[in-house]
Amino acid sequence: MSAQDQPQDMSSLAGRIINFGKFNVTSQVFHKTSHSFALVNLKPLLPGHILVCPLAVQPHLSDLTKDEVADLFLTVTHVQRTLKRVYRAEAFNVAVQDGEAAGQSVPHVHCHVIPRVTGDPGGGDKVHEWLEGEEGNVGRHQQEQQQQERQAGQWAKDEERKPRSKEEMEKEAQWLREEMGKDEKESVL
Amino acid sequence: MSAQDQPQDMSSLAGRIINFGKFNVTSQVFHKTSHSFALVNLKPLLPGHILVCPLAVQPHLSDLTKDEVADLFLTVTHVQRTLKRVYRAEAFNVAVQDGEAAGQSVPHVHCHVIPRVTGDPGGGDKVHEWLEGEEGNVGRHQQEQQQQERQAGQWAKDEERKPRSKEEMEKEAQWLREEMGKDEKESVL
Repeated sequence: MSAQDQPQDMSSLAGRIINFGKFNVTSQVFHKTSHSFALVNLKPLLPGHILVCPLAVQPHLSDLTKDEVADLFLTVTHVQRTLKRVYRAEAFNVAVQDGEAAGQSVPHVHCHVIPRVTGDPGGGDKVHEWLEGEEGNVGRHQQEQQQQERQAGQWAKDEERKPRSKEEMEKEAQWLREEMGKDEKESVL
Repeated sequence: MSAQDQPQDMSSLAGRIINFGKFNVTSQVFHKTSHSFALVNLKPLLPGHILVCPLAVQPHLSDLTKDEVADLFLTVTHVQRTLKRVYRAEAFNVAVQDGEAAGQSVPHVHCHVIPRVTGDPGGGDKVHEWLEGEEGNVGRHQQEQQQQERQAGQWAKDEERKPRSKEEMEKEAQWLREEMGKDEKESVL
């Protein structure tokens, strides 16, 4: 078992290995439901840019059951509540590139959830320009991260940014898990 | 009652007036469920570009009930089936600009559903560039159409395209209603 297969604090995920396409993203996951999970991004386009996916590795929305579709987008709104609070978001871009011809880079349904504030650098058409371009190529980023882990520090060069380290993502995932927990607690009280 | 308030063939919609924000879009609606409706666009970015909205006039996804969120996206996948067939779509962009800071132009949740085929003019970042720019400003387009109806033929000039006529949209809505009906019938058989 490689280090990548051993989640550090996955008590809330019951030790389950979670895949995003062919990638093991368990340590990036900060929320899980019966049918869906939410993960932090290797290269967020803006602070708090996360992905929500069905646990079922399926390429298209139309491949999902009704329960899976409903749960996916209820998870989006659920996660929005915490993102809104911790990133002081005024709005969100919520987008699925549903198939390769729509710019999908990993053949596993993923819904981008991007917190927005007035005057942020994503204004105009920037967020979606990034989403369609190399900046939003989550498949390539995951690939780079996997290579990085294999090559111990030999980073694949990226024109713009290097992918975040595993530790950095785990830290953010852990933080968001805790923040989600606070909101859960508040709902119950 | 103005001409705009009198839908021509709304038998399937039980005569109900359907609003998109402040606009009466009843004649543009081609599908309706208990919580949602789908309408054809005044200025589709690509052929078959439609919108799916909750019947409740609410600005944010987080303003909707769980049933409304689930129904909204189940309606998206339901409508996709027919769009895929009649527009030979290989993929879809599915996008919600959830709030003004994310580019929302009408303060009523609306999910863009844009059929895509390999090599279409929406490739690269075009679809999203349009979506964020004036081309995707559905609020402005509806406003123009309303003015057009008031001014009987005095079109507001648009740099790129003029909004489609009410008749043209009604024809497309009618066609999509029929095509949706064929798929329903097939599911039952």
